Amino acid sequence: MKSTKHIAQLTLDCVIFGFHDKKLKLILSKLKLEKDIFALPGGFILQEEDIEDAAKRVLYERTGIQDVYLEEFGTFGRTNRISDEDFLLFSSIARDLYPDVEPPVNENNQKMRIVSIGYYALVDFEKVIPQKIDLDESCDWYDIKELPNMIFDHQEMVAKGLEVLQERLDKKLLFNNLLPETFTLKDVQELYETVYDKPFPANNFQKKILDLNVLERLDKKYTGAKSKAPYLYRLKSKS
Amino acid sequence: MKSTKHIAQLTLDCVIFGFHDKKLKLILSKLKLEKDIFALPGGFILQEEDIEDAAKRVLYERTGIQDVYLEEFGTFGRTNRISDEDFLLFSSIARDLYPDVEPPVNENNQKMRIVSIGYYALVDFEKVIPQKIDLDESCDWYDIKELPNMIFDHQEMVAKGLEVLQERLDKKLLFNNLLPETFTLKDVQELYETVYDKPFPANNFQKKILDLNVLERLDKKYTGAKSKAPYLYRLKSKS
Repeated sequence: MKSTKHIAQLTLDCVIFGFHDKKLKLILSKLKLEKDIFALPGGFILQEEDIEDAAKRVLYERTGIQDVYLEEFGTFGRTNRISDEDFLLFSSIARDLYPDVEPPVNENNQKMRIVSIGYYALVDFEKVIPQKIDLDESCDWYDIKELPNMIFDHQEMVAKGLEVLQERLDKKLLFNNLLPETFTLKDVQELYETVYDKPFPANNFQKKILDLNVLERLDKKYTGAKSKAPYLYRLKSKS
Repeated sequence: MKSTKHIAQLTLDCVIFGFHDKKLKLILSKLKLEKDIFALPGGFILQEEDIEDAAKRVLYERTGIQDVYLEEFGTFGRTNRISDEDFLLFSSIARDLYPDVEPPVNENNQKMRIVSIGYYALVDFEKVIPQKIDLDESCDWYDIKELPNMIFDHQEMVAKGLEVLQERLDKKLLFNNLLPETFTLKDVQELYETVYDKPFPANNFQKKILDLNVLERLDKKYTGAKSKAPYLYRLKSKS
């Protein structure tokens, strides 16, 4: 990074998805405010930084891991996406923490709009410990079905991110990014059922996944029971 | 519009697709330069304007029509997306025409990056006469297979716009937006073959389209020949 200056009216926000215990989870920050208000991990884009690199930087800050599946899913640019109240709340913590960041206000000291680019990331829940930054009182995984009170239009971003994940889960074979390196077919099915929030008939579903011809069968999973233990699979390497 | 001021480092560009004579076409401006350099229709986003409204404004300026199918397909934000040469060329015409628009340069007079949001629009070729603006020597339809020399990363934008159109043509039933109000099944097939740049077997394809159960059959098309005239169809109204 050659400069610490950022683009004034552009940010990015990340919906970082993880799958655990049949729940789709995402990482949220609880902001350092008196009220309980939560935010997606995000940040400004430096002048000399590609947007995708900015997204990778934010992800690495919050998850400690690199080489994560990451994809843009839309731009959020309504003029009213940041309410006056939210602007004041956020400024109250940002001003002290980042004195070199000029607030996006015009010459009359009125707030100016910030446009945000939404990215979603798919991570292995087991490998990520959410990391808080200066703005945060805490940072943790939350169930997408029980979202707390979110700042700005972050709730809308989560909804759109989920919609795009559903569209692409199948077509782009994203499921393995949300599972550990080895998994059973039942794990895949439970992931699909969680993401789409509906049941899939087991026989059809497992046949469909096997017919994709992308999985390599390994040993049986150790479950204690002998005969009924399911096989473990992993994604075929692309050699 | 309450203000004429715009967001300094953010623009949008539109890939406006039309279908004519078995060709997929898009609208390009030939810029007022000594060299032949072409650009996608685009523009800045006003401070008090939703991004989608800015896209609609640009589209209306260039096509004279409203209520057009319009969708974002990605953000283009590489730091090097605008070469020094292109920046100088573009500034040379923009400076005189838009003296109130400050060029995106920093305090050392170095160019700053502009991020652009890509939209694609689907229009009825027969209804649109491309309109030039002050920057343009001319504005017209061009065959996507014979693109001229494009400024900035506009060629990359066209490629990405086409990729997203292919992904969504089927799933979102977009084909009728590229055809006149009434059309034959052969028209639909030719559109698909053009967009995907590959043949579709006629019987299977036409069955697939009819099975979608979204088309209403009208009278036969007048072709001069009596028995073999094809039926005309239109999209069922959503009543």
